[in-house]
Formats: sequence, structure tokens, C-alpha cells
Amino acid sequence: MNRYAMYHAADSAYCFPVSEEEIVLRLRCARDDLKRVQVIYESKYVFGERRKRADMRKAYSGELYDYYTVTLRLAGAKLAYVFYLDDGEEQYFFSEDGVTRDYDYRLGYYNFFQYPYINRADIMPSVKWMDRAVFYQVFVDRFCMGDREKDRSYINCRWGDIPSPRSFAGGDLDGVAGKLDYISSLGCNAIYLTPVFSSPSNHKYDIYDYYRVDAQFGGNDALRRLVKAAHEKGMYVVLDAVFNHCSERLEQFRDVLKNGKASRYHSWFCIDGDKPDAEKKNYEMFSVCSYMPKFDTSCPEVQHFLADIGCWYIEEYGIDGWRLDVCDEVSHAFWKYFRQRIKQKNPQAVIIGENWHDASSSLRGDQFDSVMNYPFTKACLDYLAWGKMDARHMAWKLGELLMRNTDTVNRMMLNLLDSHDTHRFFSEAGQDRETVLAALCLLYLFPGVPCIFYGTEILTPGGYDPDCRRCMDWDKTGPDGGYEDIADTLRTLSGLRRDGRLAEGVTSLGEQDGIFVLKNRRGECETALYINRSGRRACADGIELDNNTHCVTVNGGIVL
Amino acid sequence: MNRYAMYHAADSAYCFPVSEEEIVLRLRCARDDLKRVQVIYESKYVFGERRKRADMRKAYSGELYDYYTVTLRLAGAKLAYVFYLDDGEEQYFFSEDGVTRDYDYRLGYYNFFQYPYINRADIMPSVKWMDRAVFYQVFVDRFCMGDREKDRSYINCRWGDIPSPRSFAGGDLDGVAGKLDYISSLGCNAIYLTPVFSSPSNHKYDIYDYYRVDAQFGGNDALRRLVKAAHEKGMYVVLDAVFNHCSERLEQFRDVLKNGKASRYHSWFCIDGDKPDAEKKNYEMFSVCSYMPKFDTSCPEVQHFLADIGCWYIEEYGIDGWRLDVCDEVSHAFWKYFRQRIKQKNPQAVIIGENWHDASSSLRGDQFDSVMNYPFTKACLDYLAWGKMDARHMAWKLGELLMRNTDTVNRMMLNLLDSHDTHRFFSEAGQDRETVLAALCLLYLFPGVPCIFYGTEILTPGGYDPDCRRCMDWDKTGPDGGYEDIADTLRTLSGLRRDGRLAEGVTSLGEQDGIFVLKNRRGECETALYINRSGRRACADGIELDNNTHCVTVNGGIVL
Repeated sequence: MNRYAMYHAADSAYCFPVSEEEIVLRLRCARDDLKRVQVIYESKYVFGERRKRADMRKAYSGELYDYYTVTLRLAGAKLAYVFYLDDGEEQYFFSEDGVTRDYDYRLGYYNFFQYPYINRADIMPSVKWMDRAVFYQVFVDRFCMGDREKDRSYINCRWGDIPSPRSFAGGDLDGVAGKLDYISSLGCNAIYLTPVFSSPSNHKYDIYDYYRVDAQFGGNDALRRLVKAAHEKGMYVVLDAVFNHCSERLEQFRDVLKNGKASRYHSWFCIDGDKPDAEKKNYEMFSVCSYMPKFDTSCPEVQHFLADIGCWYIEEYGIDGWRLDVCDEVSHAFWKYFRQRIKQKNPQAVIIGENWHDASSSLRGDQFDSVMNYPFTKACLDYLAWGKMDARHMAWKLGELLMRNTDTVNRMMLNLLDSHDTHRFFSEAGQDRETVLAALCLLYLFPGVPCIFYGTEILTPGGYDPDCRRCMDWDKTGPDGGYEDIADTLRTLSGLRRDGRLAEGVTSLGEQDGIFVLKNRRGECETALYINRSGRRACADGIELDNNTHCVTVNGGIVL
Repeated sequence: MNRYAMYHAADSAYCFPVSEEEIVLRLRCARDDLKRVQVIYESKYVFGERRKRADMRKAYSGELYDYYTVTLRLAGAKLAYVFYLDDGEEQYFFSEDGVTRDYDYRLGYYNFFQYPYINRADIMPSVKWMDRAVFYQVFVDRFCMGDREKDRSYINCRWGDIPSPRSFAGGDLDGVAGKLDYISSLGCNAIYLTPVFSSPSNHKYDIYDYYRVDAQFGGNDALRRLVKAAHEKGMYVVLDAVFNHCSERLEQFRDVLKNGKASRYHSWFCIDGDKPDAEKKNYEMFSVCSYMPKFDTSCPEVQHFLADIGCWYIEEYGIDGWRLDVCDEVSHAFWKYFRQRIKQKNPQAVIIGENWHDASSSLRGDQFDSVMNYPFTKACLDYLAWGKMDARHMAWKLGELLMRNTDTVNRMMLNLLDSHDTHRFFSEAGQDRETVLAALCLLYLFPGVPCIFYGTEILTPGGYDPDCRRCMDWDKTGPDGGYEDIADTLRTLSGLRRDGRLAEGVTSLGEQDGIFVLKNRRGECETALYINRSGRRACADGIELDNNTHCVTVNGGIVL
């Protein structure tokens, strides 16, 4: 057997409790290396005398590895365990001391793996409504103008003009509220809005007043109306929390600009010297943007200031969670505090980080529920849009991504094909309709929560920011818009998710005859997705597919 | 190259900041597989355009793997990086997408490794005094009786009798205080005491009054005297916190025994039903000991109760830290709260967990500073006492253990050969004096903080509890006791540690001609340990050693 490939770590994504009586174990080994994998386990206090055994099942394969899993149901919770491995010729044990031919149970207390006690507080709870959520992301300035009476003097382009970095098109929250039925008609039941608070920019990632919704977007009352209307329709609203940095116009930063070290807010920022100087860039900022000074979240007053904001919109406006901008540049210490404050207000408020990378160190239950799943985005681009990966590698890659985090986290991951920070997937896919449809099927059927970027349903094209933030073309929506096939697909896919079945089911990933195959099974119901990008006609499970086609089946019957 | 062996994870023991400008990276690969390893890095916001390179050095080898490391000094702190690997024939890149022949820096934002910002709050601080600490562990009832006037009616054996589980021998805190000069004369400057609070047992791991030092041990005033005397001599005192469970005689548990669910303390414990029933064992307990009910640390009142105790002894008595009994069965959530409370009182109070296994999930800076290093104990037993491992495997094993945790943690690990919970090392080593001396040299020169169990210096024998807890035989101490060679060795070894050099130096591990070799280099000073258990005369660095001998050199000169 290949010892180099063996991996397990207790109290990690490879060993985590899902209830006070259930614990999930995972084991990694070289692909196709082992014939049988078992876990040998018991309460740690009797492990020297007696043990139980359970078979583990191969859940996923990656390019290099197989991933085995088992869910143990425990009477007591003081778990000690080692693995038993059979490669068909030899048998091995795998403990904290690595792979060995023999194992001395009497000395197990020195080197068995353990999960010594399942404390309720260490079981990561899920946000229940995320199991059935389908997100629709709105870039507010470009979605819909609802308030035609407002002061429009700030608007500097016509609706539909290709946006520049400084375009203001006039979209607002009443516009979003007026389109809730439309969004709902696509099967989406949750909205994630890019920032809405007072800010000089169109994107509003540089905020100068966190307690005031920007007047351009209709002010605080418009937010209240939107959340109320959404909740009446059974929909959820998640806002964008920009807590890494603010606008240079924030009152507290202006006070420091004026008073330097004499300002009571000097410690709110990371300033090398007396006064911040945008020319010298003598303070920490987002990227190299001097107009976006970074908060010092090690300052207790800043911690309270930001968490208070987080709580206020949950308590006063009833929003359903936060997406955390640039969260990976803010300290873990702050996010732990932030989570405690938010979950005290509403345990069902979701916390979704923006971290484009392996975010597992923030997804252990004490910080975020989930992150925007850009590694999934990249895999979809590589396989479907860019043709850099074949079906087999795609199945492997997605399996590897699922093994980064616990099942609890995987079910809450915000999966996306594109966003306000990327090129439009449709454009990256050479404006190919079939590619977008296949990608949407994958987006909806993959473990996690799908999030579609406004305009995806009418195949809005767009390059990098600001081109990906074009105005919504409402003429293209509706039965005569020419995109009803996309909307129908979204409706069907949402329907498959609606009863939560996909979230609770067991997903498998694989490849047959060059066709990518994803299956989800719960009880007797099996949903399957087949995508053929093999370059030829091919066949999986008896289903023949031309190149560049896909289909979705439920219990063998084609539904898409 | 062997792709299966490659491992790196950002924001882990493989990537951690040690200051606001310095970050340590580690990379794991198959042993002897690579000729050159570099890290390619820059600020994440310019990584697509330009990068720097730094060579990584092979720090340790394990049985299967080599471990490379580098410390990057960064101007800005927004680190993006990938690894560059050369196996002598081919070159590779290693990113979040694994090992690849090519790497597209322009798409790096999707898959480079990153440490996006070094926030002060996420840099694990060290407890400075631990760099020079040498611990002496005392089992109080068996060490020394200081107060000859006290009520001795509880004493049920003669000093020196082989202890039974229920022996009371009469040791107390004044006894410890009276022996501070003795302990100090061995080169030890820190004392770790098994529990001292009111308890019916001799070991006092079942506490019924956390605010009262047991009268058998001299009461609270004796503790105050001990800490004061220790501090006057520049010594530190660490107490044993038994917060997983208590005695069934604890006031709050008795209230529940009496009043069941009507008790305000019912939620303090984990009881299935109205009243706890020792016969039915309808409540959670330590191991299977019904007289030790487990606290429910998810109850906020329990959290406050226990953390208040932790803080009170730091504030009122000036103790220097806590050793946490059975900490691995208590929730991470509680220990995070506990750490915050303790470190608010005194950031230099050390927190040492009892976890016999890989404790890395508790050693990320938000829970413990350190744990009792039983995996080190096991390696010493396997190599030196039991002869189950040769020098090469010992060097590999110790290297593997050092790669579990950050350097910051490694420097604070409480390394031990034995304790009140194991057989005496001397007995496991067949009562061989040379073996104990070699083991002590390794204990003191290995990264971390040495802790010797009382009586080690006079080669006290002993099997498992209670035999390992024999009364200290004071006749054997001092110049005429017959063990001055051991005491001298301890003194010399402590001298090597005293200026903190070993803590700050760079340790390497290896094998030459069957001899185990540990070297520690800081600047121009090199300390080296050679142990020959090869079964024959052998030679390393020109030093010839008979079988079953060892020596310690400083800059080539033999000091032990």
C-alpha cells in the first residue's frame, strides 16, 4: 500500500460530530489502493479490552486519493479509534503513530485517534433554511429603479449603457422589492445584496455611514420595506458587511485626519504616525486603495462598533444574515466575537465569508457558516467554460473540494458561477447557451447552496469589473424575452431542491465513457446529472448524449 | 516526484505568523525526493505581475517525509505564495490545486496559497518565562510533610510504605515550600502541583470546594506562603485545574441530589432524569467513576464558576498558570472563554492542557499554550526504555512530532518522561541508570520545557498508579544519598537552558553510525547530544561511544 497518501486527523474535517450521538469519520488513501477499510473503535476507557468494527465506504475519489467515510452512532461519546486497512495482500493498522503491521491495543492510550467527548457546544449547528435556499445576487445600482420620484441628480448614465467604474445607473431597494415576484418566479428564495450603506461609490464597498442605507438606494425605510416584503413571500435577505475597511469619509476616520493622535479614534485604524496621509500611504488600507482605510479590529471599540452594526440590522430590520467582504484579511479573533454576537441575536442568521481560497480555518464552527465557493467556480470554468479539464478530472476536483470541509459546512457553501468580482460565466463560456445550462444544473445539484448572479437568467454577457455589472435588461425577461428556456431550467432545478432532499441526500461524483456524472440519492429517490463534453457522442447509465449536451434524471426519468 | 506525499495548508502549523512582519512556512514532501524547494511569493494584490523567491531548508525528516521550512520577512503582510519544486529532473509548482507542471500566475487569485493579512490578534504570543523554565512535578501527599502540628488523624500509612489507592501519607504545601531550595538546587525553577483543593481523596482529582485548599495540605494560607516563597526565589507555581468533573460532594451537586430538577444547579451537570443516581449512572461522569460527576460547560453559570476560580488563584494568590486535567473532554468553546478570562488577568499565566494525543486543534492560540507531551514520552519509552525503535526511527519520530504544531507551541510543550499517571520511567527502563541519564539529556535538550516527576533525581521506582506515587525518600537526597550524579546532570542540563539559548536556537535531529544525534545551534554556539543504543561501539562527529552510553557537547567539548 501507499503509505505516503494516508491521512487522517481527529477533530477536523476528517472527524467531526453531527449530533451528540453521531460522529463522521473520513480517511484518505491513495486512489484504488485499498480493498477494504474499517474503523476499530470503542469508548477510550475500555479500548484496551474490547473494540467494535465498522466498514467505511468510498465516498469520493480525487486525482491522487480515495476518500472513505463512515458515520458512527455512539452510545457513549468518548471515542477512541484506529483504522484497519486491507490492500488485498496485506493488512495494516493506522493510528497517530502512522501505518503499522501490528497494533498494541493495551498501549492505545498513547496513540489511538480520539474524539474524547462530544460536547454540544462543539457541534457546528447548521442554518436550517440554507438547506432549501437558492440565492439571487443583486448589484443594487444596476438591477432596477423602483423609486421614480427620488433625486436622480446622481445618475450619470442611461439604463443599459456599458458601465464605467464611476457609472451611477439608479437601481435601488424599492426596485429590488418590486422584483421579488420575478426573482421568486425563477425559483430563488434568498437575495444577497452588494452593500447598501452610505458610500460615495456605485458599488458602496467604501462606506461612510453604516447606520444609513444610501439615499440613492432609498434610505433605511426602503430596506425595511424590502425585508418585510421578502419575508411575506417566504424569502430571505442577506446584506454585505464591509468590515475590513471603510470610506475615508467615515466620521471616525475624518476625526483622525483632523486631530491625529489626539483623536479618540486614532486606535481604530492602523496608522504609522500622527495623521493618515493618503499620499504617503502611512496607514493600512484595502489593497492599495487609500480611500479605503482598514479598521484595526484588535481595538475593542472597533469590535463593538462593527458587531453592533451587525446586530442592529438583524434586530431592527430582520435581515437573515451577512456576507462578509474581504473577511480573510480580518482577524479570526474578531470573527469569533462577531459570530457570538450575531448568533445570540439570531442563531439562524447566516454568516457567509468572502474567501476565494481554502477557508477551512474559518469554517470550524466558531467563525463563518460558509464562504463564497470560488474554488467551485474555478472548477466549473476549467471544465465547462475553458475546456482545461475532462470529466474525470472534474469529478476528482469536486470530490477533493468536498473533503476540505465538514458535511455541515458543505451543505451551506455558497456555490456560484460568477459574481460582481469576476467575468460573467456566459462570456467566459464563449457565450454558449448549452454551457451555461449545463453549469446551472451542476450548480444546483452540487452539495451546497446555489447563488446566481442577476442577469444570468437572460445570459447577460460581461467581462471583468465594471463590465460584469451591467444594467439588468428587463426587456429580455418574461415569456417573450427569448430566455424562457433558462428560466424554466432554473425553476425545475429549484423544484428539485425545494424539499431539502438534495441537501440531505448522499452525493456521488464520477465519470462514464467521458460523461461527467453526479448522483444524489436519498432513500429511494435518485437524482442524476450527466454532462458530455467528451468531444463525441457517449453513453452513461444507458443514456446517450451528443457532445456538448447534458441531462438531468430523477429515478431514471429525464426531467431536463 | 512523489505527489502523494506533498502537504501544505495555509493558516495552520504549516503557515503561521510569529510577528507582524514574519511568517513561517513549512512544506512536507516524500523523504529524499526533492533536490530544491523554493517559495514564490508576493503581496496578493500584485502576485499576478511580480514575485519574489526564497529557498526553503530541510528542517526535519520523518519515516516517510522531509519537512522544509523558511521564515519570510515581509514588508507588507498580504501574502500570496506557491511552491517551486525540483526533483533533479523535473520542476513543479504546488498550489491549492495541487502539484502541476505549469502555473498561471494571472489566475493565481483562484488557487495560490495565502495568508492574507497578519492581524496582531492572530499571532500566538508565547509565555516568555517558559523559555527558561524547568518544571518539577509534585504529588503533594507524597512529597514532604512540612506542618508537623496539624491534625494528622487522616494519615493512614507510614512515610515510605508502598502506597495503596487510599493511602494518606501526610505531604503538604509547607512541605513543598520547605523544599524549594532543594528543588532549585536541581536546577528546576517551576513547580507543577497535582490538585490541592478540598477533596476526599489523596490525589484530590475529585474536588468538593475549589475555593479552599485542602486542610490536609495546609489550607489557603499555606498556598499563599508557598507562592510567595517561590516567587522570592524566582520560581513559578502552576496548579492543577480539574474542571472536567468534580466530587459528588460538591455543594452544587449535593443540591441536585437533594432537589433534582428543582435545584438551580440541575443544569450544571449532564443528568438524564430528575436526580443523579450513582447506581444507575444516569449522569455523565469522568471515565466510569460515579463519584466524579462531569460539569456541563455549555451552561453559562458553570463557565463563570470555573473561570472565576481560574482567575481568583491568579489574582489573589499570584499563581503562574494552570494545568488542565482531562481537558480534551471539555468543549473547545469553554477553553476559548477560559483562556480569554485567564489572559486578561495575566497574559504570562501559562495554560497547559492534559491531552495524551495530537492536540493541535487546541493549540492554535485560542485555547492552550501547551500540553503535556505524552507522544514525546512514548517515543522515549520506545527508543530508550523498551528498545522498540532504533536511533534513526527515533530521530524521525521526534521530527514528526515537532511538525504537528507551530514553533511557538513547540517551545512551550511540557515534555516529560513520566508522571503520576504512568509507570515510572526508571522502572520501565529496567532500573537502568544510564538509560535514565540519557533520557534526561534528551528531555532537557529537546525543544520545549522539561518536566521531571518528583523522585526522578533519586531514581525512585514505581509501576502504575498508585505505585508511581511513592513517598519521597529524603534519605537518598544530598551529597551522601548516592544519587549526586543524577542531580549533577540535572544541574548541568538546567545550566544549558538557563539563558534561553536552547529555546531560541535551531534544533536538528539525525542519526550517525547508529547513534542518535540532536543538535541545537544558536549563532556560533552548538550544543549536541549523542546517544548510542546501537548494540555496539560507534562513532559520530569523531566522538566514539560505547553501546548504552551518551554524551553532551558544547562547541565540541564534552560537558556530560
